[in-house]
Amino acid sequence: MVHIDSLLHAGYHNPVQRPWQVERTLTKGSLMYPIFITDEPDSLIPIPSMPNQNRIGVNRLEEVIAPLVQKGLRAVMLFGVPNDSVKDPLATAADDPAGPVILAIKLLKAKFPALLVSCDVCLCEYTSHGHCGHLNEDNTINNEASVRRLAEVAVNYAKAGADNVAPSDMMDGRMRAIKQGLLDAGLSHRVSLMAYSAKYASALYGPFRDAACSGAKFGDRAAYQLPPGSRGLGRRAIERDMREGADIIMVKPAMFYLDIIRDAKELAPDHPIAAYQVSGEYAMIHHAASAGVFNLKTAVLESMASLQRAGCSLILTYFTPELLEWLD
Amino acid sequence: MVHIDSLLHAGYHNPVQRPWQVERTLTKGSLMYPIFITDEPDSLIPIPSMPNQNRIGVNRLEEVIAPLVQKGLRAVMLFGVPNDSVKDPLATAADDPAGPVILAIKLLKAKFPALLVSCDVCLCEYTSHGHCGHLNEDNTINNEASVRRLAEVAVNYAKAGADNVAPSDMMDGRMRAIKQGLLDAGLSHRVSLMAYSAKYASALYGPFRDAACSGAKFGDRAAYQLPPGSRGLGRRAIERDMREGADIIMVKPAMFYLDIIRDAKELAPDHPIAAYQVSGEYAMIHHAASAGVFNLKTAVLESMASLQRAGCSLILTYFTPELLEWLD
Amino acid sequence: MVHIDSLLHAGYHNPVQRPWQVERTLTKGSLMYPIFITDEPDSLIPIPSMPNQNRIGVNRLEEVIAPLVQKGLRAVMLFGVPNDSVKDPLATAADDPAGPVILAIKLLKAKFPALLVSCDVCLCEYTSHGHCGHLNEDNTINNEASVRRLAEVAVNYAKAGADNVAPSDMMDGRMRAIKQGLLDAGLSHRVSLMAYSAKYASALYGPFRDAACSGAKFGDRAAYQLPPGSRGLGRRAIERDMREGADIIMVKPAMFYLDIIRDAKELAPDHPIAAYQVSGEYAMIHHAASAGVFNLKTAVLESMASLQRAGCSLILTYFTPELLEWLD
Amino acid sequence: MVHIDSLLHAGYHNPVQRPWQVERTLTKGSLMYPIFITDEPDSLIPIPSMPNQNRIGVNRLEEVIAPLVQKGLRAVMLFGVPNDSVKDPLATAADDPAGPVILAIKLLKAKFPALLVSCDVCLCEYTSHGHCGHLNEDNTINNEASVRRLAEVAVNYAKAGADNVAPSDMMDGRMRAIKQGLLDAGLSHRVSLMAYSAKYASALYGPFRDAACSGAKFGDRAAYQLPPGSRGLGRRAIERDMREGADIIMVKPAMFYLDIIRDAKELAPDHPIAAYQVSGEYAMIHHAASAGVFNLKTAVLESMASLQRAGCSLILTYFTPELLEWLD
Amino acid sequence: MVHIDSLLHAGYHNPVQRPWQVERTLTKGSLMYPIFITDEPDSLIPIPSMPNQNRIGVNRLEEVIAPLVQKGLRAVMLFGVPNDSVKDPLATAADDPAGPVILAIKLLKAKFPALLVSCDVCLCEYTSHGHCGHLNEDNTINNEASVRRLAEVAVNYAKAGADNVAPSDMMDGRMRAIKQGLLDAGLSHRVSLMAYSAKYASALYGPFRDAACSGAKFGDRAAYQLPPGSRGLGRRAIERDMREGADIIMVKPAMFYLDIIRDAKELAPDHPIAAYQVSGEYAMIHHAASAGVFNLKTAVLESMASLQRAGCSLILTYFTPELLEWLD
Amino acid sequence: MVHIDSLLHAGYHNPVQRPWQVERTLTKGSLMYPIFITDEPDSLIPIPSMPNQNRIGVNRLEEVIAPLVQKGLRAVMLFGVPNDSVKDPLATAADDPAGPVILAIKLLKAKFPALLVSCDVCLCEYTSHGHCGHLNEDNTINNEASVRRLAEVAVNYAKAGADNVAPSDMMDGRMRAIKQGLLDAGLSHRVSLMAYSAKYASALYGPFRDAACSGAKFGDRAAYQLPPGSRGLGRRAIERDMREGADIIMVKPAMFYLDIIRDAKELAPDHPIAAYQVSGEYAMIHHAASAGVFNLKTAVLESMASLQRAGCSLILTYFTPELLEWLD
Ligand SMILES: [Zn+2]
Ligand SMILES: [Zn+2]
Ligand SMILES: [Zn+2]
Ligand SMILES: [Zn+2]
Ligand SMILES: [Zn+2]
Ligand SMILES: [Zn+2]
Repeated sequence: MVHIDSLLHAGYHNPVQRPWQVERTLTKGSLMYPIFITDEPDSLIPIPSMPNQNRIGVNRLEEVIAPLVQKGLRAVMLFGVPNDSVKDPLATAADDPAGPVILAIKLLKAKFPALLVSCDVCLCEYTSHGHCGHLNEDNTINNEASVRRLAEVAVNYAKAGADNVAPSDMMDGRMRAIKQGLLDAGLSHRVSLMAYSAKYASALYGPFRDAACSGAKFGDRAAYQLPPGSRGLGRRAIERDMREGADIIMVKPAMFYLDIIRDAKELAPDHPIAAYQVSGEYAMIHHAASAGVFNLKTAVLESMASLQRAGCSLILTYFTPELLEWLD
Repeated sequence: MVHIDSLLHAGYHNPVQRPWQVERTLTKGSLMYPIFITDEPDSLIPIPSMPNQNRIGVNRLEEVIAPLVQKGLRAVMLFGVPNDSVKDPLATAADDPAGPVILAIKLLKAKFPALLVSCDVCLCEYTSHGHCGHLNEDNTINNEASVRRLAEVAVNYAKAGADNVAPSDMMDGRMRAIKQGLLDAGLSHRVSLMAYSAKYASALYGPFRDAACSGAKFGDRAAYQLPPGSRGLGRRAIERDMREGADIIMVKPAMFYLDIIRDAKELAPDHPIAAYQVSGEYAMIHHAASAGVFNLKTAVLESMASLQRAGCSLILTYFTPELLEWLD
Repeated sequence: MVHIDSLLHAGYHNPVQRPWQVERTLTKGSLMYPIFITDEPDSLIPIPSMPNQNRIGVNRLEEVIAPLVQKGLRAVMLFGVPNDSVKDPLATAADDPAGPVILAIKLLKAKFPALLVSCDVCLCEYTSHGHCGHLNEDNTINNEASVRRLAEVAVNYAKAGADNVAPSDMMDGRMRAIKQGLLDAGLSHRVSLMAYSAKYASALYGPFRDAACSGAKFGDRAAYQLPPGSRGLGRRAIERDMREGADIIMVKPAMFYLDIIRDAKELAPDHPIAAYQVSGEYAMIHHAASAGVFNLKTAVLESMASLQRAGCSLILTYFTPELLEWLD
Repeated sequence: MVHIDSLLHAGYHNPVQRPWQVERTLTKGSLMYPIFITDEPDSLIPIPSMPNQNRIGVNRLEEVIAPLVQKGLRAVMLFGVPNDSVKDPLATAADDPAGPVILAIKLLKAKFPALLVSCDVCLCEYTSHGHCGHLNEDNTINNEASVRRLAEVAVNYAKAGADNVAPSDMMDGRMRAIKQGLLDAGLSHRVSLMAYSAKYASALYGPFRDAACSGAKFGDRAAYQLPPGSRGLGRRAIERDMREGADIIMVKPAMFYLDIIRDAKELAPDHPIAAYQVSGEYAMIHHAASAGVFNLKTAVLESMASLQRAGCSLILTYFTPELLEWLD
Repeated sequence: MVHIDSLLHAGYHNPVQRPWQVERTLTKGSLMYPIFITDEPDSLIPIPSMPNQNRIGVNRLEEVIAPLVQKGLRAVMLFGVPNDSVKDPLATAADDPAGPVILAIKLLKAKFPALLVSCDVCLCEYTSHGHCGHLNEDNTINNEASVRRLAEVAVNYAKAGADNVAPSDMMDGRMRAIKQGLLDAGLSHRVSLMAYSAKYASALYGPFRDAACSGAKFGDRAAYQLPPGSRGLGRRAIERDMREGADIIMVKPAMFYLDIIRDAKELAPDHPIAAYQVSGEYAMIHHAASAGVFNLKTAVLESMASLQRAGCSLILTYFTPELLEWLD
Repeated sequence: MVHIDSLLHAGYHNPVQRPWQVERTLTKGSLMYPIFITDEPDSLIPIPSMPNQNRIGVNRLEEVIAPLVQKGLRAVMLFGVPNDSVKDPLATAADDPAGPVILAIKLLKAKFPALLVSCDVCLCEYTSHGHCGHLNEDNTINNEASVRRLAEVAVNYAKAGADNVAPSDMMDGRMRAIKQGLLDAGLSHRVSLMAYSAKYASALYGPFRDAACSGAKFGDRAAYQLPPGSRGLGRRAIERDMREGADIIMVKPAMFYLDIIRDAKELAPDHPIAAYQVSGEYAMIHHAASAGVFNLKTAVLESMASLQRAGCSLILTYFTPELLEWLD
């Protein structure tokens, strides 16, 4: 009754064979840990909506990072969390030499030279209006001015020692501007560029806003973040960013956009593909595990397996500390 | 500074244009509601781990379904939840003419003739050992006997009036056996066959087990459900099921497997693609919304948009009642 | 006798399953309504060859549009219908700040800010010779001058508030010129560009000429509109317009060119595809329905299903008012 | 301002070049004329809803066909129009040796041996219930019995001299059954098989029903004709019919399904692709031309150009008599 | 001078980023260790041409394997090394219940139930003439008889407890015969089938012959092993073996055939791809390292990286013991 | 038992047919011989780690090359081996008109005008720090300055008479710079450019360093040579070098990178593909043959067959002298 061409079981009945069916394996080197740097140098303040995550002052950074580095942490991404008082329409504080990001870059590269330091590059944490760029008089984005400022900020992070810069703003043309800026500064060979190529206007950013970013004061970011149902715009952004010099292509959020990660892997088979498992995903898995829906470790590892199956070789996740333990 | 080939914003700045970027639109006709039929005919018992979902006795079915049909419900999937006392190694109770599934089919088709009634076909709810098929003496699956029994059960559901049968067991060759059974019974033209083609051994089935299925008493189902990290086996199962006569291809779970849905759409561009948003996904979104991570409606609609973007035209979800309201 | 691989009926026997076979669903958001603005501000004059359509003066616009917006209208396209007296060889009147199009843009954006206002951009309504561009001395098209003038007109529409500009002229290079014009004017982020990429020299434009355009006084437009039998030129125009910055790709006419819409979807999988169901198609369906050939609603909905099946996510149709009702 | 890669005009400015852009050319040999044969041998009765078309008695056939053959007619398709009195549930009259179709085949092959005679093969003109097959007791289609009867009828037409048989019924597996029947009868080498592979449940069949077929008395044919919005089922039917031995693949209706013709050409690049421009399309163009929407000849030729551009090399059209004149 | 599209360095300048460029990571679960079982139960005899490898008697097996299992060994492949005295033309000894392979299977599964035991299936170790199958009278291969015997042997290994069988003979049709044999024996769900699909007639088998196989007494195996320069035959063998039911596709040798591994990955994207780093490759790397050409560990790890880059997820290598250490 | 679609043997059973399965044939014209030119003009010094290879003084060149030319040698590649005393940070000696490379070019073109003379272009043999380019103050590569210097050197080799220049440095943008230099010097039509496109940071370069290059004094070359496991960077480098004007694409090393050669052939189907069988591969085969692992000639010829099967039409190998003999 059963034909030979129906048979699949033999390939995975024995558990030893299951990893042979899997293309990529999770290693510590595949992880990047996103952390929040506040400009209160001595504080270490838990973020209520993101269990186990903190806003970290520069003077507390070493005590947080050192044990992770010892467990195998190889890369972090820095987000600045400035005080409201430093914000202005032009995001002047973004690359303040005495601001938290630049101080943190210098400290981390001094203490942990082998740790790759990546910086999120955006203006929204530093603008008084909360948008990711400069504005025109009608409060729409001034793309040209925004791109110029973003390149300036990115180059200043690179000069301070950042190994990677990652513009999350979604302005048109910012990749090319930053790459050119790095090239002109003689830094393009040692500072890589990670594109938030397909960044969707998702409901899953809620807790992050609590952590780092007060949100836009008016208007909304859907004019530059992508509409969730759209596949075409995500694909066009990936292709565009490769043309503009991206070294790494990122998709954000991760789990609700696994099909876009697959698209990224197909459009960019020769670039590393990254995914950012965002705060809402982190919180959702945490809350469900607490409620007994599933075991935390099993579910997190399944989410990692899914991201790798879809095509990622780099994963940004707040579960990095747990994963460093589980992977031992 | 910005080149013409960098420009994407214009395509989605104005919100009127965003739906033009989207391929598929959610309608009530895209939804199928999975429900649990208990063999206690008068009970209506909430399932603790799945907020708002119940085990429904046959005598309570009309009161649950009628208001949904009025709001536009077009399709349900039935899961039997038999008492332990009826279970045996051969799953004799699965197609008991007086059992809950067959009674529910008859009642629903009598009361709501336009409602499409689909039946999950598996043995695990009815076997004393909790496996999805018959066993060999060494407690491994007897594939041949299992397939024969599954076809028998599916045909009996079809004879009772089911419009669609959906084998969730993952035995090799069960699609061909059921299709042949329907053909021999003269039912193949009016009963369609939905394949759980890519059913992964996921952590997300927890609450469902609470609802319907006591789980395997020994051994585990990973010998016939697919390993989460494997892309190849999922793809091969989809191709196999098309060759064996599947009318609809399903991927399960949904959100952690969006990349596999995309694969399904590419391998089966001319078949409807379905996704089953399983109990763990349902619970996870519910718990996160309760904890204030995001607004329930926004997140559920984003998950639907993601499923459609990845390629689904049919979605099985416990959020069906809410969606019928939101889509008005 | 019948083999399993012959069986298709089960997939669509039950009507509930038929929408699962369909990729796209018609919604109000998929429609754009083309309207004719005359420079007699108080008139509202029926167009004899286009049942139910009018030439609308600016002062009558609100009464026509308000009830449609209330029913869900989200987008209009404006065509100017100037008096012969304002025409000259250079189409000076096209962007006259006191002309009907610019006044209509301002009025519509003031009264209905959420309504997307698109403007057809062409010179033929405004040139004394009736051609779509400027002419050389030998009466062939001066492509360079035409493109410069078209960009000027498009930018002026954008400055007046148009959300979308859609050059229908088919001059070589006009997309890039308009995009650059919008970029230089700081408008490229909020004004999208829809390309009449594959505009065929069709017999189906008859009634439109009655409505808006007196036709070329000499020569014919087949030198820049595409020959109906040609597939290659249509495809090359679509690819060209993507390279030049088009945000949306349009095919015109619609029903006689469904295969070209399919081509557009394959060449531009990541752009919205639009189709313009032109006046002759509109009249043809109307006349046939009046003669009892078919039911109007059934036939119009079948034509919409065909356009979506072929790949459109945006449809320009004179049936928009009826569709807004039928879709309730 | 204009870049070299924007230039397309030169390729079609000069009218001499326009045919070079076209893949296929309309010739008389590309046409097949569908005609209606009544069982009143001496009548020649105009069909009200189809201007210029008649129901033709066998004794009037020569006078109708002879002048067309002289103008170059090379192929006809016969539809039987029997009296209601001969209808029964099993369509016994379909291959009555004294019925109109078999008599017409014999007469045409005797008088015009070079004329290709194709026969539509279906049961709906001969069944008392008006369905295209035999019925089960619950009034759904009995696919197995239907296929057997269809093969019987087709073989009898072939034995009477038909050069081509074309089953329009859409039963699953009828192509393979007919091909096997022809093979068993030793006719498979000289009788070709044309599949109505993608026959959609269209609003455009209205006038035909007036001409030949009284329609189903109950139920509807949407259970075996394809849903208009579905692309996948049409594609799967084309692939299935190739596997089952089709010599020619047909799409029906024509103009609303040009994208499916393109799909057919891509799926079946090595088969002739036919399209049937059905009665509603014929009537629609006729009525619009009468109302002055366009010139009849220009519009019909544009529709032919469209069909050929989409991929047809054979067109079934009621405009065949006019085209034989226009092509001179 | 340097353009943006020339820049690649940034992507790998920092060593943390290098693993992100890599698709697959070597883990212990990716390794299978090939071992030689002699029929002298108490011996443990070094193989001169293969440093560190032994012929192992059944009674010595536990002491060899236990420490490796403790270090993480998950899979072995068994080769029988029978005494010349048991050889005959029909390879009767191949599945002798008291022969070394069957005894070793039983012992290993008893002592290490979680260890996957794979068996090489061939006749050449057991035939007096040294060919891989039965012979015709003219000393060419009798393919039919050979395939029958191979299936018999494979099924007997499976019955003894083997988890995987791997026919290395290259007879036409042996995969289907073995799969059918396993199916008939009710073992197809738990015993997987690995195809030596592309086994080339290489110079690199020298030391293996020393270890296990005395070589053909006359004729040569090039009539069934593939000619080294041929790509087409290797590809056709891979496709053939998938059709015949292979669960895993193997290429052999490994390093000189990396391009064929890439071909295998492209032809069989959904199957695990294995490579067998054969004795000559092993010896070559060993000798070069001893001569100081390179560091052994660096070179072996580079060879593993190459195999994974080319597409393998399973590697059979004699370096398994060293790798189990290095991967800690 | 065996099905027709299992049969492959017939295609290669008869040895006459085996070459028919092979795409490319090894000829003397496919070989290029890499040689080392020392600046001690009269010496001829064996290189210990590379049996049979020497450092050749210019005055000894003719006696080495003449007999090879007579046997059919058609191409050589020159590596300069300067004395440490001439090294400086800027690699001034690289194109010293009195240095060994330029003298050797002139001599070879004078004595053997038909012999193609290719020059490796790099700075590492001439820099005091041993890196392949100029350095920044932080000892990272100064890409811009390096590229400028490399172009200068390449043009000077071309002016001296080299027929081909082959930059092995892996700086970003060096291909475009050299091509532009050749163009400006009026030499681009007669001097071809071979790109070491995919040059991996391999363990196999050991003996070469002994021969020509003392290695980097600090830092390592992994910042510009590719990580062995990376496929994507190799592919992107190949695509990049084609865009920058490469005439020939080279992969290095050869045998461990056969899959990358296959990638090169697929990405650059219209360029000649070269492979460099490096010193470690040469030594490894030599040592294994000496140890009796295999016969030298059989193994070398198999390695050549593999390189050609993978897609090479040009092979750089130290076995060139032996091959010139064996091919007679
Ligand atoms: Zn931002
Ligand atoms: Zn089950
Ligand atoms: Zn115009
Ligand atoms: Zn019919
Ligand atoms: Zn053998
Ligand atoms: Zn170098």
